[in-house]
Amino acid sequence: MVQGRVRILGIDPGLRFTGWGVLEAEGNRLRHVADGVVATDGTEGVSLRLKALDNALAELLERYSPDEAAVEETYVNRNASATLKLGYARGVALLAPARAGIPVFEYGAKTVKMAVVGTGGADKEQVGLMVRRLLPGAAQKRADAADALAVAICHAHHRSTTNIWKPVS
Amino acid sequence: MVQGRVRILGIDPGLRFTGWGVLEAEGNRLRHVADGVVATDGTEGVSLRLKALDNALAELLERYSPDEAAVEETYVNRNASATLKLGYARGVALLAPARAGIPVFEYGAKTVKMAVVGTGGADKEQVGLMVRRLLPGAAQKRADAADALAVAICHAHHRSTTNIWKPVS
Repeated sequence: MVQGRVRILGIDPGLRFTGWGVLEAEGNRLRHVADGVVATDGTEGVSLRLKALDNALAELLERYSPDEAAVEETYVNRNASATLKLGYARGVALLAPARAGIPVFEYGAKTVKMAVVGTGGADKEQVGLMVRRLLPGAAQKRADAADALAVAICHAHHRSTTNIWKPVS
Repeated sequence: MVQGRVRILGIDPGLRFTGWGVLEAEGNRLRHVADGVVATDGTEGVSLRLKALDNALAELLERYSPDEAAVEETYVNRNASATLKLGYARGVALLAPARAGIPVFEYGAKTVKMAVVGTGGADKEQVGLMVRRLLPGAAQKRADAADALAVAICHAHHRSTTNIWKPVS
Protein backbone atom coordinates (compact mmCIF):
# COMPACT_ATOMS: atom_id res chain seq x y z
CA MET A 1 0.00 0.00 0.00
CA VAL A 2 1.29 3.44 -0.99
CA GLN A 3 1.99 5.72 1.99
CA GLY A 4 1.65 9.52 2.03
CA ARG A 5 -0.12 11.00 -0.97
CA VAL A 6 -1.99 8.43 -3.02
CA ARG A 7 -3.74 8.83 -6.35
CA ILE A 8 -6.94 6.82 -6.73
CA LEU A 9 -8.91 5.97 -9.88
CA GLY A 10 -12.58 5.28 -9.17
CA ILE A 11 -14.63 3.40 -11.77
CA ASP A 12 -18.41 2.95 -12.01
CA PRO A 13 -18.65 0.48 -14.87
CA GLY A 14 -21.42 -0.02 -17.41
CA LEU A 15 -21.48 -1.23 -21.01
CA ARG A 16 -23.16 1.98 -22.24
CA PHE A 17 -21.61 4.49 -19.81
CA THR A 18 -18.62 3.98 -17.51
CA GLY A 19 -17.99 6.78 -15.04
CA TRP A 20 -14.43 7.47 -13.91
CA GLY A 21 -12.85 9.88 -11.47
CA VAL A 22 -9.33 10.54 -10.19
CA LEU A 23 -8.53 12.06 -6.82
CA GLU A 24 -5.51 12.45 -4.58
CA ALA A 25 -5.72 11.60 -0.90
CA GLU A 26 -3.25 12.51 1.81
CA GLY A 27 -4.42 11.57 5.26
CA ASN A 28 -7.90 13.08 5.54
CA ARG A 29 -7.39 15.57 2.75
CA LEU A 30 -8.83 14.90 -0.69
CA ARG A 31 -8.10 16.73 -3.94
CA HIS A 32 -10.07 16.37 -7.16
CA VAL A 33 -7.91 15.63 -10.20
CA ALA A 34 -10.28 14.75 -13.04
CA ASP A 35 -13.50 12.91 -13.88
CA GLY A 36 -15.55 11.95 -16.87
CA VAL A 37 -17.56 9.28 -18.63
CA VAL A 38 -16.57 6.72 -21.25
CA ALA A 39 -19.47 6.06 -23.62
CA THR A 40 -19.52 3.17 -26.07
CA ASP A 41 -21.43 3.07 -29.33
CA GLY A 42 -24.63 1.06 -28.80
CA THR A 43 -24.84 0.26 -32.51
CA GLU A 44 -21.51 -1.59 -32.43
CA GLY A 45 -20.97 -5.22 -31.46
CA VAL A 46 -20.35 -6.06 -27.80
CA SER A 47 -16.75 -7.10 -28.27
CA LEU A 48 -15.84 -3.84 -30.08
CA ARG A 49 -17.59 -1.88 -27.32
CA LEU A 50 -15.54 -3.71 -24.69
CA LYS A 51 -12.42 -2.97 -26.71
CA ALA A 52 -13.33 0.75 -26.80
CA LEU A 53 -13.88 0.72 -23.02
CA ASP A 54 -10.61 -1.13 -22.46
CA ASN A 55 -8.72 1.35 -24.68
CA ALA A 56 -10.22 4.32 -22.84
CA LEU A 57 -9.36 2.88 -19.40
CA ALA A 58 -5.80 2.05 -20.51
CA GLU A 59 -5.42 5.65 -21.72
CA LEU A 60 -6.72 7.03 -18.39
CA LEU A 61 -4.39 4.75 -16.43
CA GLU A 62 -1.46 6.01 -18.48
CA ARG A 63 -2.48 9.68 -18.36
CA TYR A 64 -3.19 9.88 -14.61
CA SER A 65 -0.88 7.12 -13.29
CA PRO A 66 -3.09 6.22 -10.31
CA ASP A 67 -1.55 4.17 -7.48
CA GLU A 68 -4.72 2.22 -6.77
CA ALA A 69 -8.11 1.62 -8.36
CA ALA A 70 -11.55 1.23 -6.79
CA VAL A 71 -14.49 -0.27 -8.66
CA GLU A 72 -18.13 0.04 -7.65
CA GLU A 73 -19.95 -3.25 -7.23
CA THR A 74 -23.17 -2.02 -8.80
CA TYR A 75 -26.46 -3.37 -7.58
CA VAL A 76 -27.99 -5.99 -9.77
CA ASN A 77 -31.75 -5.84 -9.90
CA ARG A 78 -32.68 -6.42 -13.50
CA ASN A 79 -32.85 -9.57 -15.61
CA ALA A 80 -30.04 -12.10 -16.16
CA SER A 81 -29.17 -10.72 -19.60
CA ALA A 82 -28.66 -7.18 -18.23
CA THR A 83 -26.64 -8.60 -15.32
CA LEU A 84 -24.41 -10.50 -17.74
CA LYS A 85 -23.77 -7.32 -19.81
CA LEU A 86 -22.97 -5.35 -16.67
CA GLY A 87 -20.60 -8.21 -15.84
CA TYR A 88 -18.76 -7.73 -19.17
CA ALA A 89 -18.10 -4.06 -18.38
CA ARG A 90 -17.12 -4.80 -14.77
CA GLY A 91 -14.78 -7.55 -15.98
CA VAL A 92 -13.01 -5.05 -18.24
CA ALA A 93 -12.96 -2.43 -15.43
CA LEU A 94 -11.36 -4.95 -13.04
CA LEU A 95 -8.91 -6.17 -15.69
CA ALA A 96 -7.57 -2.82 -16.98
CA PRO A 97 -5.97 -1.61 -13.69
CA ALA A 98 -4.60 -5.12 -13.01
CA ARG A 99 -2.95 -5.09 -16.44
CA ALA A 100 -1.48 -1.69 -15.56
CA GLY A 101 -0.02 -3.32 -12.44
CA ILE A 102 -1.98 -1.50 -9.72
CA PRO A 103 -4.13 -3.06 -6.97
CA VAL A 104 -7.90 -3.06 -7.46
CA PHE A 105 -10.47 -2.75 -4.66
CA GLU A 106 -14.19 -3.39 -4.85
CA TYR A 107 -16.87 -1.67 -2.79
CA GLY A 108 -20.59 -2.36 -2.68
CA ALA A 109 -22.96 0.51 -3.40
CA LYS A 110 -24.12 0.63 0.25
CA THR A 111 -20.55 0.90 1.54
CA VAL A 112 -19.88 3.73 -0.91
CA LYS A 113 -23.00 5.65 0.14
CA MET A 114 -22.18 5.11 3.79
CA ALA A 115 -18.66 6.49 3.29
CA VAL A 116 -19.76 9.52 1.26
CA VAL A 117 -23.16 10.48 2.68
CA GLY A 118 -23.18 8.67 6.02
CA THR A 119 -26.17 6.47 5.22
CA GLY A 120 -26.38 3.37 3.02
CA GLY A 121 -29.78 4.43 1.70
CA ALA A 122 -28.74 7.77 0.15
CA ASP A 123 -30.07 8.60 -3.31
CA LYS A 124 -28.09 9.68 -6.39
CA GLU A 125 -28.68 13.41 -5.75
CA GLN A 126 -27.31 13.21 -2.20
CA VAL A 127 -24.24 11.31 -3.42
CA GLY A 128 -23.62 13.94 -6.15
CA LEU A 129 -24.06 16.78 -3.65
CA MET A 130 -21.62 15.28 -1.12
CA VAL A 131 -19.08 14.47 -3.86
CA ARG A 132 -19.13 18.14 -4.96
CA ARG A 133 -18.79 19.24 -1.33
CA LEU A 134 -15.90 16.86 -0.59
CA LEU A 135 -14.17 17.52 -3.91
CA PRO A 136 -14.50 21.15 -4.96
CA GLY A 137 -13.75 21.39 -8.66
CA ALA A 138 -15.38 18.11 -9.59
CA ALA A 139 -17.29 18.59 -12.83
CA GLN A 140 -19.11 15.24 -13.05
CA LYS A 141 -21.74 16.38 -15.47
CA ARG A 142 -23.14 12.86 -15.48
CA ALA A 143 -24.18 10.90 -12.39
CA ASP A 144 -21.84 8.06 -13.45
CA ALA A 145 -18.80 10.32 -12.95
CA ALA A 146 -20.08 11.34 -9.50
CA ASP A 147 -20.53 7.67 -8.62
CA ALA A 148 -16.97 6.94 -9.76
CA LEU A 149 -15.60 9.77 -7.59
CA ALA A 150 -17.76 8.45 -4.73
CA VAL A 151 -16.16 5.00 -4.89
CA ALA A 152 -12.71 6.67 -5.02
CA ILE A 153 -13.63 8.71 -1.90
CA CYS A 154 -14.88 5.52 -0.24
CA HIS A 155 -11.57 3.81 -0.93
CA ALA A 156 -9.58 6.83 0.33
CA HIS A 157 -11.62 6.68 3.53
CA HIS A 158 -11.25 2.94 4.01
CA ARG A 159 -7.53 2.80 3.28
CA SER A 160 -6.81 5.54 5.83
CA THR A 161 -9.01 4.12 8.60
CA THR A 162 -8.74 0.37 8.20
CA ASN A 163 -5.79 -1.89 8.58
CA ILE A 164 -7.68 -5.03 7.75
CA TRP A 165 -8.48 -4.65 4.12
CA LYS A 166 -7.64 -6.87 1.22
CA PRO A 167 -7.30 -5.89 -2.42
CA VAL A 168 -9.13 -8.01 -4.98
CA SER A 169 -5.79 -8.03 -6.83
CA MET B 1 -14.82 -12.83 -43.87
CA VAL B 2 -11.86 -15.06 -44.66
CA GLN B 3 -12.43 -17.32 -47.69
CA GLY B 4 -10.94 -20.78 -48.22
CA ARG B 5 -9.28 -22.31 -45.17
CA VAL B 6 -10.16 -20.52 -41.97
CA ARG B 7 -8.78 -21.02 -38.48
CA ILE B 8 -11.32 -20.63 -35.68
CA LEU B 9 -10.74 -20.20 -31.94
CA GLY B 10 -13.70 -21.37 -29.86
CA ILE B 11 -14.00 -20.18 -26.26
CA ASP B 12 -16.28 -21.46 -23.47
CA PRO B 13 -15.63 -18.85 -20.79
CA GLY B 14 -15.78 -19.18 -17.01
CA LEU B 15 -13.96 -17.47 -14.14
CA ARG B 16 -12.68 -20.79 -12.76
CA PHE B 17 -12.24 -22.73 -16.03
CA THR B 18 -12.25 -21.38 -19.57
CA GLY B 19 -12.26 -24.01 -22.30
CA TRP B 20 -10.62 -23.22 -25.63
CA GLY B 21 -10.23 -25.07 -28.90
CA VAL B 22 -8.73 -24.29 -32.30
CA LEU B 23 -9.82 -25.90 -35.56
CA GLU B 24 -9.37 -25.32 -39.26
CA ALA B 25 -12.34 -25.36 -41.58
CA GLU B 26 -12.28 -25.56 -45.36
CA GLY B 27 -15.72 -25.92 -46.86
CA ASN B 28 -17.27 -28.88 -45.02
CA ARG B 29 -13.96 -30.28 -43.82
CA LEU B 30 -12.81 -29.70 -40.28
CA ARG B 31 -9.39 -30.32 -38.79
CA HIS B 32 -8.54 -30.29 -35.09
CA VAL B 33 -5.57 -28.08 -34.22
CA ALA B 34 -5.47 -27.85 -30.42
CA ASP B 35 -7.61 -27.53 -27.31
CA GLY B 36 -7.27 -27.06 -23.60
CA VAL B 37 -8.48 -25.30 -20.49
CA VAL B 38 -7.30 -22.13 -18.79
CA ALA B 39 -7.72 -22.41 -15.01
CA THR B 40 -7.42 -19.45 -12.68
CA ASP B 41 -6.41 -19.59 -9.04
CA GLY B 42 -9.56 -19.41 -6.90
CA THR B 43 -7.56 -18.10 -3.93
CA GLU B 44 -6.51 -14.98 -5.87
CA GLY B 45 -8.48 -11.75 -6.25
CA VAL B 46 -10.94 -11.45 -9.11
CA SER B 47 -8.98 -8.84 -11.00
CA LEU B 48 -5.76 -10.91 -10.92
CA ARG B 49 -7.74 -13.94 -12.10
CA LEU B 50 -9.13 -11.92 -15.02
CA LYS B 51 -5.60 -10.78 -15.81
CA ALA B 52 -4.40 -14.41 -15.85
CA LEU B 53 -7.26 -15.35 -18.18
CA ASP B 54 -6.54 -12.36 -20.43
CA ASN B 55 -2.83 -13.25 -20.56
CA ALA B 56 -3.59 -16.86 -21.45
CA LEU B 57 -6.04 -15.88 -24.22
CA ALA B 58 -3.58 -13.32 -25.65
CA GLU B 59 -0.92 -16.06 -25.73
CA LEU B 60 -3.28 -18.50 -27.51
CA LEU B 61 -4.25 -15.83 -30.05
CA GLU B 62 -0.59 -15.21 -30.78
CA ARG B 63 0.40 -18.88 -30.87
CA TYR B 64 -2.44 -20.09 -33.13
CA SER B 65 -3.22 -16.89 -35.11
CA PRO B 66 -6.93 -17.68 -35.58
CA ASP B 67 -8.85 -15.75 -38.25
CA GLU B 68 -12.08 -15.62 -36.26
CA ALA B 69 -13.27 -16.32 -32.73
CA ALA B 70 -16.53 -17.84 -31.48
CA VAL B 71 -17.69 -17.52 -27.88
CA GLU B 72 -20.36 -19.63 -26.22
CA GLU B 73 -23.19 -17.66 -24.68
CA THR B 74 -23.50 -19.89 -21.62
CA TYR B 75 -26.86 -20.43 -20.02
CA VAL B 76 -27.45 -18.44 -16.91
CA ASN B 77 -29.49 -20.27 -14.34
CA ARG B 78 -27.91 -19.49 -11.02
CA ASN B 79 -28.01 -16.42 -8.80
CA ALA B 80 -27.14 -12.84 -9.80
CA SER B 81 -23.71 -12.98 -8.19
CA ALA B 82 -22.72 -16.09 -10.19
CA THR B 83 -24.12 -14.51 -13.36
CA LEU B 84 -22.05 -11.37 -12.75
CA LYS B 85 -18.87 -13.45 -12.31
CA LEU B 86 -19.60 -15.39 -15.49
CA GLY B 87 -20.06 -11.99 -17.12
CA TYR B 88 -16.53 -10.95 -16.07
CA ALA B 89 -15.02 -13.98 -17.77
CA ARG B 90 -17.18 -13.58 -20.88
CA GLY B 91 -16.24 -9.91 -21.05
CA VAL B 92 -12.55 -10.85 -21.11
CA ALA B 93 -13.23 -13.64 -23.64
CA LEU B 94 -15.02 -11.18 -25.95
CA LEU B 95 -12.36 -8.50 -25.47
CA ALA B 96 -9.20 -10.56 -26.07
CA PRO B 97 -9.90 -11.52 -29.73
CA ALA B 98 -11.14 -7.97 -30.47
CA ARG B 99 -7.86 -6.61 -29.11
CA ALA B 100 -6.05 -9.07 -31.40
CA GLY B 101 -8.01 -7.58 -34.30
CA ILE B 102 -10.17 -10.57 -35.28
CA PRO B 103 -13.98 -10.72 -35.50
CA VAL B 104 -15.87 -12.34 -32.63
CA PHE B 105 -19.11 -14.29 -32.96
CA GLU B 106 -21.48 -15.40 -30.22
CA TYR B 107 -23.64 -18.51 -30.23
CA GLY B 108 -26.21 -19.60 -27.68
CA ALA B 109 -25.82 -23.05 -26.10
CA LYS B 110 -28.88 -24.39 -27.95
CA THR B 111 -27.53 -23.24 -31.34
CA VAL B 112 -24.21 -24.93 -30.57
CA LYS B 113 -25.87 -28.23 -29.60
CA MET B 114 -28.09 -28.08 -32.65
CA ALA B 115 -25.07 -27.59 -34.93
CA VAL B 116 -22.98 -30.34 -33.32
CA VAL B 117 -25.48 -33.00 -32.22
CA GLY B 118 -28.56 -32.07 -34.25
CA THR B 119 -30.77 -31.35 -31.26
CA GLY B 120 -30.82 -28.33 -28.95
CA GLY B 121 -31.47 -30.54 -25.92
CA ALA B 122 -28.29 -32.67 -26.15
CA ASP B 123 -26.37 -33.35 -22.94
CA LYS B 124 -22.65 -32.78 -22.25
CA GLU B 125 -21.75 -36.42 -23.04
CA GLN B 126 -23.42 -36.31 -26.45
CA VAL B 127 -21.65 -33.04 -27.27
CA GLY B 128 -18.27 -34.50 -26.25
CA LEU B 129 -18.91 -37.65 -28.28
CA MET B 130 -19.84 -35.74 -31.43
CA VAL B 131 -16.90 -33.36 -31.04
CA ARG B 132 -14.52 -36.37 -30.91
CA ARG B 133 -16.26 -37.87 -33.93
CA LEU B 134 -16.14 -34.64 -35.96
CA LEU B 135 -12.61 -33.77 -34.87
CA PRO B 136 -10.44 -36.90 -34.58
CA GLY B 137 -7.42 -36.03 -32.50
CA ALA B 138 -9.25 -33.75 -30.11
CA ALA B 139 -7.98 -34.43 -26.59
CA GLN B 140 -10.43 -32.29 -24.58
CA LYS B 141 -9.80 -33.97 -21.29
CA ARG B 142 -12.22 -31.55 -19.69
CA ALA B 143 -15.80 -30.91 -20.84
CA ASP B 144 -15.00 -27.17 -21.10
CA ALA B 145 -12.53 -27.87 -23.92
CA ALA B 146 -15.13 -30.00 -25.74
CA ASP B 147 -17.66 -27.16 -25.37
CA ALA B 148 -15.12 -24.71 -26.81
CA LEU B 149 -14.49 -26.97 -29.81
CA ALA B 150 -18.27 -27.35 -30.16
CA VAL B 151 -18.79 -23.58 -30.47
CA ALA B 152 -15.93 -23.45 -33.01
CA ILE B 153 -17.63 -26.25 -35.01
CA CYS B 154 -20.92 -24.35 -34.76
CA HIS B 155 -19.28 -21.24 -36.17
CA ALA B 156 -17.59 -23.20 -38.98
CA HIS B 157 -21.01 -24.62 -39.87
CA HIS B 158 -22.81 -21.26 -39.76
CA ARG B 159 -20.20 -19.34 -41.69
CA SER B 160 -20.25 -21.89 -44.52
CA THR B 161 -24.05 -22.16 -44.78
CA THR B 162 -25.31 -18.69 -43.93
CA ASN B 163 -24.84 -15.46 -45.76
CA ILE B 164 -26.83 -13.41 -43.31
CA TRP B 165 -24.68 -13.42 -40.23
CA LYS B 166 -23.27 -10.54 -38.31
CA PRO B 167 -20.19 -10.57 -36.11
CA VAL B 168 -20.49 -9.07 -32.62
CA SER B 169 -17.30 -7.18 -33.52
